[in-house]
Amino acid sequence: MRLSQLLFPTLRDDPKEAQVVSHRLMLRAGMIRQNVAGIYTWLPMGLRVLRKIEGIVREEMAAIGCGELLMPTLQPAELWQESGRYDSYGKEMLRIKDRHERDLLYGPTNEEMITALVRDCKPSYRDMPKLAYHIQWKFRDEIRPRFGVMRGREFLMKDAYSFAADKAGAEAAYESFFMAYLKIFSRLGVTAVPVRAATGPIGGDLSHEFHILAETGESQVYVDKAYFAENVNELMFTKAKGYYAAADELHDPSQCPIPPEQLATKRGIEVGHIFYFGTKYSAAMGATVTVANAQSVPLEMGAYGIGVSRLVGALIEAHHDAGGIRWPVSVAPYRLAIVAAKPDDEDSVSKAEQIYRNLSQLDGDVLFDDRPERMGTKLADLELLGIPHVFVVGPKGLENGMVDWKERASGKTTAVPLAGLEHLYAHF
Amino acid sequence: MRLSQLLFPTLRDDPKEAQVVSHRLMLRAGMIRQNVAGIYTWLPMGLRVLRKIEGIVREEMAAIGCGELLMPTLQPAELWQESGRYDSYGKEMLRIKDRHERDLLYGPTNEEMITALVRDCKPSYRDMPKLAYHIQWKFRDEIRPRFGVMRGREFLMKDAYSFAADKAGAEAAYESFFMAYLKIFSRLGVTAVPVRAATGPIGGDLSHEFHILAETGESQVYVDKAYFAENVNELMFTKAKGYYAAADELHDPSQCPIPPEQLATKRGIEVGHIFYFGTKYSAAMGATVTVANAQSVPLEMGAYGIGVSRLVGALIEAHHDAGGIRWPVSVAPYRLAIVAAKPDDEDSVSKAEQIYRNLSQLDGDVLFDDRPERMGTKLADLELLGIPHVFVVGPKGLENGMVDWKERASGKTTAVPLAGLEHLYAHF
Repeated sequence: MRLSQLLFPTLRDDPKEAQVVSHRLMLRAGMIRQNVAGIYTWLPMGLRVLRKIEGIVREEMAAIGCGELLMPTLQPAELWQESGRYDSYGKEMLRIKDRHERDLLYGPTNEEMITALVRDCKPSYRDMPKLAYHIQWKFRDEIRPRFGVMRGREFLMKDAYSFAADKAGAEAAYESFFMAYLKIFSRLGVTAVPVRAATGPIGGDLSHEFHILAETGESQVYVDKAYFAENVNELMFTKAKGYYAAADELHDPSQCPIPPEQLATKRGIEVGHIFYFGTKYSAAMGATVTVANAQSVPLEMGAYGIGVSRLVGALIEAHHDAGGIRWPVSVAPYRLAIVAAKPDDEDSVSKAEQIYRNLSQLDGDVLFDDRPERMGTKLADLELLGIPHVFVVGPKGLENGMVDWKERASGKTTAVPLAGLEHLYAHF
Repeated sequence: MRLSQLLFPTLRDDPKEAQVVSHRLMLRAGMIRQNVAGIYTWLPMGLRVLRKIEGIVREEMAAIGCGELLMPTLQPAELWQESGRYDSYGKEMLRIKDRHERDLLYGPTNEEMITALVRDCKPSYRDMPKLAYHIQWKFRDEIRPRFGVMRGREFLMKDAYSFAADKAGAEAAYESFFMAYLKIFSRLGVTAVPVRAATGPIGGDLSHEFHILAETGESQVYVDKAYFAENVNELMFTKAKGYYAAADELHDPSQCPIPPEQLATKRGIEVGHIFYFGTKYSAAMGATVTVANAQSVPLEMGAYGIGVSRLVGALIEAHHDAGGIRWPVSVAPYRLAIVAAKPDDEDSVSKAEQIYRNLSQLDGDVLFDDRPERMGTKLADLELLGIPHVFVVGPKGLENGMVDWKERASGKTTAVPLAGLEHLYAHF
């Protein structure tokens, strides 16, 4: 894409309303604009990151046989009256009346809706287990929205649900999501720690929060140091689950099973939560399955969330420096940007354009900074935005058939031959 | 994907609530389920069609330099008070109060929001023109929602907006969208007729509705027969715009400039609308641009909509037969399905599975019908769902190294050699 065609309103100064670094950087790098408290427009650069995160989540959901569907943002109140949560949910639920005075609500989560859907599909034992997810905007009317997209009111979430005929099936589903989550966060370029979470009245240890580590994280996390040496792709569930990891509220030093010298103390940001809750919704809403002996039993359910829009902020909290954002390549708005060093030098501009066209044909992940700005402004904007690789095309280099390759992560600049650019790009 | 893993609740009988064929077929083929009047869940098969339509729209928007962003579903009332539409919009606007008694609304369209955004980005003459779009769920509280997703309340729309410094720039933008729309509908496998639409107080001829032709269409369209002989990819704007085409309300036989024998009378479904409205919103909301002589002028704007969720229904209205839906290949939920003829014959099941795995590696557009059902049921379901190509893998064919290839469009079955399946699939 040509940058001149996009809405990309960068800001030189830190906006006053932003308290955390990710919020500041997202506003300064022209990724988002606030419309009203906790509700944002995602500008082209922000949206691309959001979509890339979605893409990785989708691939890992497909890999465990989890089917995608899409439930609506608005839900009828009756569903929540069936489960008993309509009255108990409190003021975070945005309640709405339509023109016929019918009670609707903007879904803050979808347990009720998916339970009703599966119930109405009348599943048989042979259809089990069933894993389904959607990626949809949700609304929680936070009393004090803050930290930008980290705690917005309208937010994008991936929520998955599993349905099984028995507890063993539910546990197997839980295991696949647990491992899929480790892979997702690893592909997003961050270390995620699965932390045991309170399971409430159901008990057991089948609830985990996933925290990604960042110095600015909101909660304290205590983790067995050995966990960090593990390779996610080789790790088994039993072992992964076995590592000690706890957040503030559940960590009691006097009860901790591992010695203090073996314990790392880190800051974390919660970006995922998985939960086995058995028949809580299925029993209340009559979502049953007919098992072998013609008996009807309520479905064993689990729910698995990832805060997709929150992750954009959380990844920035984990990856930034004084110059701006440092995106992992997998989620950068574009992997590569191309800049002509002198906008008034026709030769280098047309060469830059030619390189842009060639590489664009390989895939659409190249940005051409064709804005009528000075090179210094362009490079500062691209650094702020965190584009991992930049090719600077200038008359001096071209004399020797070279362009400058700037790497965001290392800050290094290397002269590379024109002939090798395609090959280089393919390895970014 | 393995069909056994997906929620795919087909119905044998026509649901009573569905009045039009697309609604009946979408319910019967397990594409959607209604949650409450005019609000639907998109099941896996429906969602894939929706996503494929979105994909084609995105490619053609990128081709004209239109940048994607995403505005939120909820909007502050203040924006609409600025434009003067908050009071005039009527009961179709879903008005909401948040916990702080602040007035919000579920966006029925986004002229106000994008105008405020561009205004706040303080564009200069050098940034013009700017084209931007989003694909987002909108809400219109129809008094009587009907025809399934063709007239739902929560619906998915692509709405684009153009901003220019003068009328010539606005007209050029209009022209690119007009031509992009013809390409989009052509890629969706339908003939779209651009019909002059009323422009209201602004006047001029810069407003067109795009109708796709279907016998069950809601409106009568009168079109110059010569238009149907045109190739969209070779057509120029001036010529395309020059053809006579009018819907019911704007067609007056006594004023029609072409002879009756040259006029085709067709049924159409409106799926797009483009509109040049000048400074209506920019003047009211103070969205200006500084032009060459340091003078500040209001932006010249246009808006360009496509009903993405409505299109799913409209395409079915245009493409179905007694057996069910007949998707154009470009938007079918999957291009190909693979079925083992005898679920209890281990050889053919494992061969079918092997073919599925091989072809899945080429791209993810293959469905493996591994449900524990009889072959007749599977083939009827796949026909109902409109999968364009099916490979039936059975013991008889395998003896000669062949599988049966069933084509949905022609109804033909052809025996094809196992060795040629990859090649064949690549051409679907």
